[in-house]
Amino acid sequence: MESIHVNLAERAYDVLLGRGLLGCVGEELAARLGRRGVLVITDDRVGPLYLQRVLDSLARAGHRAAPLTLPHGESTKSLDTLPRVYAALAAHGITRSDLVLALGGGVIGDLSGFAAATWMRGVPFVQLPTSLLAQVDASVGGKVAVDLPQGKNLVGAFWQPSLVLIDPDTLETLPERYWRDGLGEVVKTGCILDAGLFALLEEAAPQGRQGLMARIDEILLRCVRAKASVVAEDERDTGRRMILNFGHTLGHAVEACEGYTGHSHGEAVAIGMSAVAHIQEAEHPETIAPGAAARLDALLDALSLPRALPALPAEALLQAMSLDKKRAGDALRIILLRRIGEAFALESSPAFYARYLSDRALTRLTVIR
Amino acid sequence: MESIHVNLAERAYDVLLGRGLLGCVGEELAARLGRRGVLVITDDRVGPLYLQRVLDSLARAGHRAAPLTLPHGESTKSLDTLPRVYAALAAHGITRSDLVLALGGGVIGDLSGFAAATWMRGVPFVQLPTSLLAQVDASVGGKVAVDLPQGKNLVGAFWQPSLVLIDPDTLETLPERYWRDGLGEVVKTGCILDAGLFALLEEAAPQGRQGLMARIDEILLRCVRAKASVVAEDERDTGRRMILNFGHTLGHAVEACEGYTGHSHGEAVAIGMSAVAHIQEAEHPETIAPGAAARLDALLDALSLPRALPALPAEALLQAMSLDKKRAGDALRIILLRRIGEAFALESSPAFYARYLSDRALTRLTVIR
Repeated sequence: MESIHVNLAERAYDVLLGRGLLGCVGEELAARLGRRGVLVITDDRVGPLYLQRVLDSLARAGHRAAPLTLPHGESTKSLDTLPRVYAALAAHGITRSDLVLALGGGVIGDLSGFAAATWMRGVPFVQLPTSLLAQVDASVGGKVAVDLPQGKNLVGAFWQPSLVLIDPDTLETLPERYWRDGLGEVVKTGCILDAGLFALLEEAAPQGRQGLMARIDEILLRCVRAKASVVAEDERDTGRRMILNFGHTLGHAVEACEGYTGHSHGEAVAIGMSAVAHIQEAEHPETIAPGAAARLDALLDALSLPRALPALPAEALLQAMSLDKKRAGDALRIILLRRIGEAFALESSPAFYARYLSDRALTRLTVIR
Repeated sequence: MESIHVNLAERAYDVLLGRGLLGCVGEELAARLGRRGVLVITDDRVGPLYLQRVLDSLARAGHRAAPLTLPHGESTKSLDTLPRVYAALAAHGITRSDLVLALGGGVIGDLSGFAAATWMRGVPFVQLPTSLLAQVDASVGGKVAVDLPQGKNLVGAFWQPSLVLIDPDTLETLPERYWRDGLGEVVKTGCILDAGLFALLEEAAPQGRQGLMARIDEILLRCVRAKASVVAEDERDTGRRMILNFGHTLGHAVEACEGYTGHSHGEAVAIGMSAVAHIQEAEHPETIAPGAAARLDALLDALSLPRALPALPAEALLQAMSLDKKRAGDALRIILLRRIGEAFALESSPAFYARYLSDRALTRLTVIR
């Protein structure tokens, strides 16, 4: 079992990573946090696969545990679901001496984390992420939130977990679409922070998912270490943490313009990363190592991740980016690559993308190559 | 104008106190936080009295301001009100570069603070408390929350304001019931932290509300200073801050048993303080300065604050205290007086109260004296 420490002073915590961890959750919690009341929150896809094993382990270790199973899917991550979660917290008498355990992907993690952050002004929270995206990204860093009709993640908090338990075995049951969703963020991590991870992916990608699963422990470990180091430097996302947004400005715009029913987040980020690298190569070639964009494209292809911009009106994409920017109340900072494994931020505006989107040169670039 | 600094490292802020401050809110905000978008949240009792003056001042100083007026009363401080507040935040484009301004008493302050704490994972928040209770207690310390059907303040956060503006003139329009509500907490502050304040109250009380209003600046200043010093030591309420709960264990039980429709919070705290002081004098006389309980009773009488325990079943009160304790997941700590102006915490249990409540000796004590 590997252990990664997320260094956040009084909010520091460990991420444990090991095959089979799911079957000894109760024991790990007891050893590290003591015996507690535990509300296990999951969904109706993950629950049937893993809930009983988690509850058995909790019972064996002497915790007082109760489950709450919610419908799967993004619509569960909404303000409207919260009364149901709070009612379960009240019914099971969860207090600051107890904890909330999120068993599932990003939706369950974000929702449970927000409920934990706000129940009695904050109760401890443990993550047991079961999707690749949640394991490499959402479960580390303390960003929790729910969606509103007006937008995604509009209501949220920074609430660090007390412990994160990653069991790579849970990825065996992950549907292909969610697998690729997570891969997008894995590639991103390689691009911005870890050239060794990028090379590992290049090596393993030709053997497909099986090849990647053979080296998944190292892949996860590198992703979590990279994210943990960035989060430790900038917990509240006001500085260095923004490099995690590589590929996200255009990616978010694609997701929004498709009404969140087209490309998955990770796929949209793949499209966004490739686009940014090519724009950068064309407009500021002196700032990016030669061949970086081509290497990125080759890896995305090998992983069956998309990089062609879908046929969306340029106007709509630019407007979505402006809205995103306005919503955050920040200047738009574009994250660019110095080389594979190193990124930097540049103050910019949606205009950065405008020429390519407007004359569809970008579409040609990514489609034709 | 007085200024009190609440020393909380990167979350430090100032409390400004001065007559007429309400009329120059915009200028103060501009000088201290810059020009911003401002959502002013108020209720339909306070709004008609003060909203226009606040909006005028904001407009004069160049802020982009919009109001949201909610129904008055405790039922507004609920999870159900939040979608309406979030919708207003979205409609007015409030981001982390803007701020939420709470114009009202504790209900508006707690609700607005929680909305600010959770909107986009936290936007700046300014308090303009208009009730005595909010000025001396709720507006300083960062405890924000909403109620659930399952209990009060169950959903909340610690979210420090960026600035608190206290204008004592707003107390001129405060209904008598709310005035006495606030006085309970003022007396508490004197008891636990400031013998000088207690003496000032003893001096001014015989002249009634007018006598107190003549010295209100000093009273408010002392209360805010005392609260700020305790909060600075223990932001998240895990240690010293608990002394602020003097009189609250029994006080909360009284409020709960009356279904929150009987004594106000401050009145219930007055009853609780007197009871604790008398129990302490009877059971642990060596721990409290002679005559302290009698001095407290005399001041409560002079301020027309109640101290007689209402005719509620002892069983119900004890059960409410146990529930309160269980809900917090903490040991019950009783706050006791060493002397007027100094308090200490004692690990205890509802049993501390049991004998007095059961044989109604306490009722006799407080009724007969």
